[in-house]
Amino acid sequence: MTTRTKTNRTIWLKESDKKVVQIIDQRFLPHQVVIKDLKNVDEVVVAIRDMQVRGAPLIGVAAGFGMYLASLHLSCGNCSLQMQEAGKHLKDARPTAVNLAHVVDRVLSAVSKLNNPDDIQKTTFQMAQDILNEDVQICKQIGEHGLHLIEDLSKKKNGEAVNVLTHCNAGWLACVEWGTATSPIYHALEQGIKVHVWVDETRPRRQGAHLTAWELGERGVPHTLISDNSSGYLMTRGLVDLVLVGTDRTTVTGDVANKIGTYMVALAAKDNQVPFYVSAPSSSIDWNMTDGFREIPIEKRSENEVKEIQGWCDGTFKKVKVAPERTPALNYAFDVTPRALVTGIITERGIAEARKESLLKLFPEKRGSI
Amino acid sequence: MTTRTKTNRTIWLKESDKKVVQIIDQRFLPHQVVIKDLKNVDEVVVAIRDMQVRGAPLIGVAAGFGMYLASLHLSCGNCSLQMQEAGKHLKDARPTAVNLAHVVDRVLSAVSKLNNPDDIQKTTFQMAQDILNEDVQICKQIGEHGLHLIEDLSKKKNGEAVNVLTHCNAGWLACVEWGTATSPIYHALEQGIKVHVWVDETRPRRQGAHLTAWELGERGVPHTLISDNSSGYLMTRGLVDLVLVGTDRTTVTGDVANKIGTYMVALAAKDNQVPFYVSAPSSSIDWNMTDGFREIPIEKRSENEVKEIQGWCDGTFKKVKVAPERTPALNYAFDVTPRALVTGIITERGIAEARKESLLKLFPEKRGSI
Repeated sequence: MTTRTKTNRTIWLKESDKKVVQIIDQRFLPHQVVIKDLKNVDEVVVAIRDMQVRGAPLIGVAAGFGMYLASLHLSCGNCSLQMQEAGKHLKDARPTAVNLAHVVDRVLSAVSKLNNPDDIQKTTFQMAQDILNEDVQICKQIGEHGLHLIEDLSKKKNGEAVNVLTHCNAGWLACVEWGTATSPIYHALEQGIKVHVWVDETRPRRQGAHLTAWELGERGVPHTLISDNSSGYLMTRGLVDLVLVGTDRTTVTGDVANKIGTYMVALAAKDNQVPFYVSAPSSSIDWNMTDGFREIPIEKRSENEVKEIQGWCDGTFKKVKVAPERTPALNYAFDVTPRALVTGIITERGIAEARKESLLKLFPEKRGSI
Repeated sequence: MTTRTKTNRTIWLKESDKKVVQIIDQRFLPHQVVIKDLKNVDEVVVAIRDMQVRGAPLIGVAAGFGMYLASLHLSCGNCSLQMQEAGKHLKDARPTAVNLAHVVDRVLSAVSKLNNPDDIQKTTFQMAQDILNEDVQICKQIGEHGLHLIEDLSKKKNGEAVNVLTHCNAGWLACVEWGTATSPIYHALEQGIKVHVWVDETRPRRQGAHLTAWELGERGVPHTLISDNSSGYLMTRGLVDLVLVGTDRTTVTGDVANKIGTYMVALAAKDNQVPFYVSAPSSSIDWNMTDGFREIPIEKRSENEVKEIQGWCDGTFKKVKVAPERTPALNYAFDVTPRALVTGIITERGIAEARKESLLKLFPEKRGSI
């Protein structure tokens, strides 16, 4: 993939000094592209905590690099203990991020029997690269499977642009290179298939407007920003051919937790016979959960995200108040789209229907764990 | 009705000088309550054009007062011609506002045979008052009919607060005193019935956050602001008992054009068996239209409403950019909710089902006009 900026990834090792990790500091998007050096695990912790990097897959990859940076600065004494402390530090940066904890535990398990700092460094270096490459590979595979959906629609439309609608940001900015929901779009683009993307603004944090619009623009994908209220109307007018969204957690039965508002998009898609697909790497599938509505905990976030909006004004960020001072706001961050509204789930191994047997057919090794 | 501010209306004649009209200049809400004097028809034109007053009913009432102010400043010569020019001036302030044109034509017709400035003044004064009082009366009647819905829900919940969800602003700020969608809520409040209102922010212009939240707060109605994406999720959690919205135009067959996003709220209401009611004064019903989806024209507004947000910062308004510069946006202002999703239509004569025969039963005199 090529982008208009110099980087086509969200995180990488600095070309001139492999002991430094570089990231796009996403807090400044879409108004400024700030590349930031991270030189030690503490700086990775801050980057995760302050949302310089965000998106579950990217946070996991950043944690891998955090463990590598920690290994570069081991002092004399108990290396294993120092690595454990670094891991705890990273986990505490975002306690609800399940895959961050998985990455940390995976690295800790690999270095647990090593005592030599050099060995630990070599191992963590390799693991950080592996974790990054796995993400790239999984997103690529999701894109290859999802590409067929867009190809088919393109044929049906005799090559006219396929209109894809997406909600929030499940793009390369949330991962390393391809994204999940966006990967089929980027793959279609590489195949020369005409695509146009409707980008839901995604209130309250506006990840669609800030991040998805920016990353699509960087890669030259035709796109149009809309208010979240608009997606249903566009569907009634036949202006949406396909909905593609990501997921924070999907049950083995096909219930999909994703950014608040996804459920209403899915309702509109159903009402207008627009196919609704969820890009879900298998790491986001909860193989033990069968009732998303009852079992998936939904995070409430600060009311200030609803009552204040940060934007760009005279070359700097300004936060403006957009509601009466005394009005309270409620801010659930996610919702659950029931399986009945989901046309299919695009995984790295292929596309499944939103039901247990279909998902388990792609991941038979998970049968034992249920 | 009493409010926390000194006024409980959006427009009135100045107490100390009946030749001056006063309005709440709504551009400053919710951050400042600015009362503005309008001394001649030109100032009314500006008030309408610049959205100092907004909402179809209020614009109509303002036009009535505009004609009255015009009559105060007639110069020698052809009074009728001068009144016609004032009327044209008012109509041009908002060419798509059907009821503004109706009000102007109604006043012009009444003064067409008068030549004496005094007679014209008396007539326009009386008509402006009549038009204002009609709005108050119609909104009051809508409230009395809609009140029963809230009463019934309150009984079912053993007096626990009835949770009403509303979209955009169809409140007293859009009318004179009661509003349309809000009128049943204010009536319930006066009856001592516990009510809580979920206020949809209503992107892109954010009328829910700016206006509905403010006006409910002014009248002491418990309410909570939410992002538009949240309403569906709240319904899945049983947190919404009733949806009440206004309408810009409703067909005789029950299709409802209203602020963009209303359709998605209606879909979520249907999916969760939440009753979905539309407050529609008969003036907003189009007795000749049978297919809202095909026949109601939907206005596209500036993309800047999506890409920029105005808010309050350090005691003044600031406009901040909230999307990439190069990203285009599409901004349809309304959508159409099909009759199948509408539980009922609350008119000044009672509640009808969303179908022709039921509406005509309440307004039999309209049979002839179809």
